[in-house]
This record gives sequence, structure tokens and C-alpha cells, in this order.
Amino acid sequence: MSKPSLARGTRDFGPSVMVKRNYIFDTIKRTFQKFGFQPIETPTIENLSVLMGKYGDEGDQLLFKILNSGDFSKDLTQKDLDEGAKKLTHKISEKGLRYDLTVPFARFVVMNRNDLVMPFKRYQIQPVWRADRPQKGRYREFYQCDADVVGTDSLICEAEIVLMLQEILQNLGIQNFTIKINNRKILSGIAEVIGVKGSEVPLTVAIDKLDKIGKDKVEDELRERGFSEESIEKLQPIFEIQGADNQVFEKLKAWLKESETGLKGIEELEKVWSLVESFGLDNSKIQLDITLARGLSYYTGAIFEVKANGVQIGSISGGGRYDNLTGTFGMPGLSGVGISLGVDRIFDVMDELGLFVDNQSVTTKVLLTNFDEEAEKYSLPILKKLRDAGINAEIYPESGKIKKQFDYANRKNIPFVVVVGSEEIQTGKLTFKDMALGEQEKLNLEQIIEKLK
Amino acid sequence: MSKPSLARGTRDFGPSVMVKRNYIFDTIKRTFQKFGFQPIETPTIENLSVLMGKYGDEGDQLLFKILNSGDFSKDLTQKDLDEGAKKLTHKISEKGLRYDLTVPFARFVVMNRNDLVMPFKRYQIQPVWRADRPQKGRYREFYQCDADVVGTDSLICEAEIVLMLQEILQNLGIQNFTIKINNRKILSGIAEVIGVKGSEVPLTVAIDKLDKIGKDKVEDELRERGFSEESIEKLQPIFEIQGADNQVFEKLKAWLKESETGLKGIEELEKVWSLVESFGLDNSKIQLDITLARGLSYYTGAIFEVKANGVQIGSISGGGRYDNLTGTFGMPGLSGVGISLGVDRIFDVMDELGLFVDNQSVTTKVLLTNFDEEAEKYSLPILKKLRDAGINAEIYPESGKIKKQFDYANRKNIPFVVVVGSEEIQTGKLTFKDMALGEQEKLNLEQIIEKLK
Repeated sequence: MSKPSLARGTRDFGPSVMVKRNYIFDTIKRTFQKFGFQPIETPTIENLSVLMGKYGDEGDQLLFKILNSGDFSKDLTQKDLDEGAKKLTHKISEKGLRYDLTVPFARFVVMNRNDLVMPFKRYQIQPVWRADRPQKGRYREFYQCDADVVGTDSLICEAEIVLMLQEILQNLGIQNFTIKINNRKILSGIAEVIGVKGSEVPLTVAIDKLDKIGKDKVEDELRERGFSEESIEKLQPIFEIQGADNQVFEKLKAWLKESETGLKGIEELEKVWSLVESFGLDNSKIQLDITLARGLSYYTGAIFEVKANGVQIGSISGGGRYDNLTGTFGMPGLSGVGISLGVDRIFDVMDELGLFVDNQSVTTKVLLTNFDEEAEKYSLPILKKLRDAGINAEIYPESGKIKKQFDYANRKNIPFVVVVGSEEIQTGKLTFKDMALGEQEKLNLEQIIEKLK
Repeated sequence: MSKPSLARGTRDFGPSVMVKRNYIFDTIKRTFQKFGFQPIETPTIENLSVLMGKYGDEGDQLLFKILNSGDFSKDLTQKDLDEGAKKLTHKISEKGLRYDLTVPFARFVVMNRNDLVMPFKRYQIQPVWRADRPQKGRYREFYQCDADVVGTDSLICEAEIVLMLQEILQNLGIQNFTIKINNRKILSGIAEVIGVKGSEVPLTVAIDKLDKIGKDKVEDELRERGFSEESIEKLQPIFEIQGADNQVFEKLKAWLKESETGLKGIEELEKVWSLVESFGLDNSKIQLDITLARGLSYYTGAIFEVKANGVQIGSISGGGRYDNLTGTFGMPGLSGVGISLGVDRIFDVMDELGLFVDNQSVTTKVLLTNFDEEAEKYSLPILKKLRDAGINAEIYPESGKIKKQFDYANRKNIPFVVVVGSEEIQTGKLTFKDMALGEQEKLNLEQIIEKLK
């Protein structure tokens, strides 16, 4: 006998949580599809040759690695042990678990390059695994929901991502959110005009903290990172540029006028703003944020991040434009833009804001009671007719006391019970009970079906 | 640069296959829900203490095992290497990948025993992993779709499983199939009356092959397995019992009259037949098969197997009743009955029979052309209105030649294209083209939405 336990950082999802999670997944999927994205799935298990070296040294360590099958130990020697875990891993493990959806997508595109219709719009909703230290809100197994368009530089794609995010969140009932947007080229431009061209990574790591630690501490951090007083002095506009987005664009143009790259970034964002406006979006939630960076090394154009306002939960979505998805697999120059939604955080936001409504589509709508063999026999064709009418229905499987059966309905959140006793069998009028109101009435089957539909 | 490849025995699913697979999954899910089953999900990664010893020695070997994180090699010695892969595995791996959905379900039930509403009806649709040798139709990563009711002995559950299987297959368009049913107690009864009580496993392994190798070879195999001539002589009725199911029940009762267990098995099946009949099923596809065994050691009552007729593909579903799901985790006596559907085989059956219909719900229904910036700007609000009307729609993201854009629509299987040129912009009448018929007409947006709905 073994004591059952969950592996650290993993979770079971019981029915009540599953119904809510599926509601989120279905809403995301439906919107992705409405925008012309098509589903793909890639395997959980990938060759380590595909995964290693794609996520940095830390990522390599956080990959879950699978032990080779068969007698993997027979050629191992003391020397292999002495060389340490890294080299030893190489000898006994060739496969690992999917770490994100981007690298497998890149592999998929390269392996299917001749069959794909470009521009290729794909969505992918699957779990990923990371051997991170588990903590509150951070799991070792969690879902990602990604949508990407590859094979085009068109800024319509950026505008469509804004629309899509907005539609998903509004369909979920999340009204108060902000879609922050920046452009990598603006960050490059800033680095250029303050005289640290190419150093936008350490620069943005510091200014990204402005909200949290304030201007003085950001400047201290820049000094620690070796930025000169002159550069820091030149950076002052970043702390002062404020106003409506179009005013900020104008101020940025003046500040970055010496940087061709920076101006290109502003131009791109202005075009995105204009396209979003062309769509006739009632209440656009986009906001320019020139400190937004998100894994800079990867993005080359637009950078997105979505925050739900009024809750203390990190960003619920992020993404951006890249210009070299597949270079590492020998297919250079494929650009695209994508977005990833974090289902666990969206779940937490909705839970905290009380946005989950009773969703009865996947639970049972009506329970038939079961008192004895005669009633059971009488009920089975009724059960079939309810289901044929598209109603989720079940019969209590055993004869038993009515209290136990009502209790079953209550605990399973079944809203209606049809009581089938001897009187009901004689008259054909069934007792139809509304569990929430506690009221009941006598109805025939057609009337019951009408009520439940 | 690494050459991209798939791990052996794994698959990518591109959009066209995904749409078909999702159609199967959705049909199965919808039916499970209609019968009152609720979804759960368990993690991919389980502790090996949960998985090991549950699937026999062969199963233990076929489990994918995950290398421990961190410096797993530092305490290893030459002695560990000398002891071989099995012991070494124990030292460097504590987790493995889900091998089926039954053991994780049992763990889930035990860990949530106080919160579950009994009888508990759950369905679970997730992939499983087995380090089997890959071959045609056998993969290392594949989905299972399981539905189980636990916490009741009621034979209504068996009858419901028959109904549910029948509804799923008919909804998928598979008309010609057989649901074979047996009962473990009948197999025990046969073993008893031929004088080999308790030996039903080797007995049924042999008679299970009757269809394939014929009576004489089955008898040879029984001799090889040490069955006496007397037992084989007494087994003769099994080769002769034929006729309609009720006739077979009568003949079985006469043959097995000395076995209480055997008679109980017949009684249970007769009750299932009677319940299925009570449901008023038009065209029941159940068939008694007293040679059906399917992993005997586990089942204690009904045994199910579903075959699609007219195609050379193995069983597409199987299951049965068990009386001790959770004993191995310290919770004895929990009985239940369940069914598992194999999506890969169902896919192959439908593919071979040409049952997949054009399913447009997840692909784009209409493409807007894109000739220049003016047309693009004019089209974006149209695009939004189409989507607001619930229509999957996209715009070609770049200005380009019309041939290229039509080609995109054709290759992506988009049935309709709206051409927005300068004339259309002037008149407000858009050119609406049916790609399959090659016909086009001038319509305003409201008319187009009406057509597409």
C-alpha cells in the first residue's frame, strides 16, 4: 500500500474548478477562432536537442528531463559520475518536457514549412513544465494559451492582438484592465540618445522598476550598473514625459529625433494606434508605457502586457513582435507577433472579482429520483427523452431514501429534481422541484422539457 | 543551430487534423456531460510511488521517468552503477509521467474522499505516456477519454454506459458497430464447471483467440497451458453455444447450473439487457460474447468492448466493472464501472469510412481582401462587425495581388471572400465571392452577414 500524494508543484482539478477553467479556455479559444487563428498541438515530450540552449542556462536547468529507457546505466563509469550532473545527464537523458509553446511552435513551423499557408495564424493551448521552486501562484505544471501570426510584418496583426485581448477579457467579464504597449525600437532609441547604444537591456531592467522603487532608486541602480552621470542626466525626460498618448508621442519624437531607430518605433506605435481606432473600438484600453520591456532579448518591435486593475495579481498576458522565430532551427528571417495568456492568473482575477457565474452547461440540470424497481423502469424512457432534448440529466442509480437523493442533488449543484413515486406513475404528472426556490409543481414530461430548455 | 526533429513515437497535430480531433473530443465530452459525468484533470507528473507496482513489471518498465532536479549525481558511487538500471533509477528519479487515467483517478478519489459526492461520476480526457516500441498506430503519447461511476453497484450504470457509447458513436456518424459484453463471473463459472476454478486467466487468454485461430488451435494452446483432456472436453459448450442472446442466456444457465458465481454473472447481464430495453433504445447494438476477457485481473463484473464493423481496426473502446479501485491506496471496497475511448482509433475509423464532414466552426468563414491603405482602413470596421455577429473572419494582413489573396483563402479552406476595391468603397456594395462555386455578387454588409449566419 502506498500513501497517495501529489508531486510538488502540481495540482488536481476537481469538477467545480474544471468547469470554471473550461469556461476560460473556451472563451479564449472561441475568440482566437473568430480572428482566424487555427489550432495546433505539439507533443509533451521533445528531444533535448530541440529544447536545450533556447532558454538560457537557467532555463536549461529548469527543464524536466526524462531518463532514457532500457538499461541506461550499463556503459556508465566512475568517470562519468566524477564529471558531475550536467555531463551525466547528457549520457542518460535524450528527452525533456515542453518548457513553453514558442520553441515547439518554431520547430513545428520549420518541419512543416512546405505545407503551411503563410501568413500562418496558429493558436496553441497546452500545459508546460518547469522545475522551478514551487510557491504561491507558481506551479511546475501550468497551461499557456498562445496565439501567433508568422510570416508578415503587417502592423494590422498588432492591432488585431489588441482587439482580441479586449474581446477575450470583456467576454470573461473583466471590465477594468489596461493593455500596456511599448516598442523595442523606442527602448533602443532611448539607449542611443543617452549615449549607451546597445545597452538597453541593463537600462530597461532598471527603469522597469520605476513604479515600484521611484526615480531616485532607479538612478542609484543605473549608477551601480555603470551608467555615467551624463547618461543619467540625459535620461531625465523618461521621468517627465506624461499626458495623453498622442502628446507623449510628440514629446518622444522631439527627444529621440537623433535616433532613426527610435523614430521608427514611434511611427510603428502611432500606426497601431491609428489601426485600433479605425476598427471603431468603443473603449480602447491601450496605454503607451515606454518603460515596458518583458524579456527584451527576444522582441524586436511591439511589446504587450495586460494588467487587470484593482487586484494585486501580476500581468495576465504578455507578448510582442519578433523577427527571427526559427533561426535557431536553420530557417532565418521569419518574423511574427504573438500573445500568451496565463490561465491561472486570469482564474485568480475572476475569482477575486467574483466574476464566475453559475455555469450549468457541463453539470447535470435535472435528477430523476429512484425509489424502487417499478419507478426505475418507469423513469428510464423519461431520462432518455430528456437527454434526447439536449438536457443534461441523470437518475439516482440506487433505490434509496428521498433525503439522500435530494442531498446528492444539492451537493452536486443540480438545480432541478423530478420525483417519480407511485402517484406520479399512476397519473403521468411528475413532481418537478426547483431546488433553489424549494418549490414544486406537478407537470407532465413535455412541460418539464419546455421548462428546462 | 540544431536540426529540428520529433521525439520517437510522438506527433505534431496541424490545423486540419486538430479540427477533426477536436470534433471527436467535443462529441465525447458533450455526451459524457449529458449523462451527468463531471470533468476532472490530474497532473502529467506523478510521484513514482503512486505509479510503480500498479501496472505489473512490464508497466513499471514502460513508465517514463523524470530525472531529479539539482545535482542528482553527487552521492552516486560505482556501487550504484554496478547494481544496474533499476536500483539506480530509484536513486535518481522520483517522478514519472501518467501511464493511464485510472491510477491517477484512484489517487484523486482517495485524496478527496471527504469532498466527493458519491456516487461520483467523473470523466477525464488527457494524454498518457508509455515507453513502448513505436509502430504503426501505436504512439508513446496518446489521449485517453475515460468515464467512470464509483461508489455504487447499481447495474443502471452498466446500462447507461451502453447508451452513452451508442450515442457517442452515432453522433460521430459511426453507424455500424458492436458493443460486446461479458461478465467476469461467467468466466469464473466456466472455469469452475470445467474443474479449473481460479484458472480463468490462462483459460480466457486461450479462448479469446477463438475468432483468430479456430477451435483446434485453442484446444492445443489449452493443452500446452496444462489443462487436462477432461477439462477441455467439458469446455465444449463454449464452442457450440449460439443463437439470440436470450437463448444463449438459457443455455448458459443450464451449463453453469453448478456454479453460483456463474449464475450470478448471467443474472447481472440479463438485468443489464432488461435495463437497456427499458430505456427504449431503438436499435441496441449490444451482443453477448462469453469469450471476451480484456485484462481480467482487474474486472469483477461486466466487461465491455466496442468494435467498428467493416474496418480492420482493433477495438475503439473498452471497460468494465471493478470492485476495488482504491485498495492499493488504503481505501478498500470502492467499486465502480467505467469505459475508455481510444481517440486515435476512432479517428482512423472515421477517416477510413469518410465520416469527417467539413467542419467550419473553427476555421475562418470569410476573408476580406487588402489592396491598399485606403481599402484597409475601410475594411477594419467591416471586419469588426462581422466578428461581432459571431462570424469567424480575417483580413489579409498585407496589401497584395488578388491572386495571392484568393490563393490564401483556398489553401486555408476559407469558403467566402469579400473583395473591397475602390468601386466597392464608393458604392458601399461589396463583392461577395463563393470560393467553391466560383460565383460572386454585389451585396451590402447586412446582406453578407445574413448569408454567412
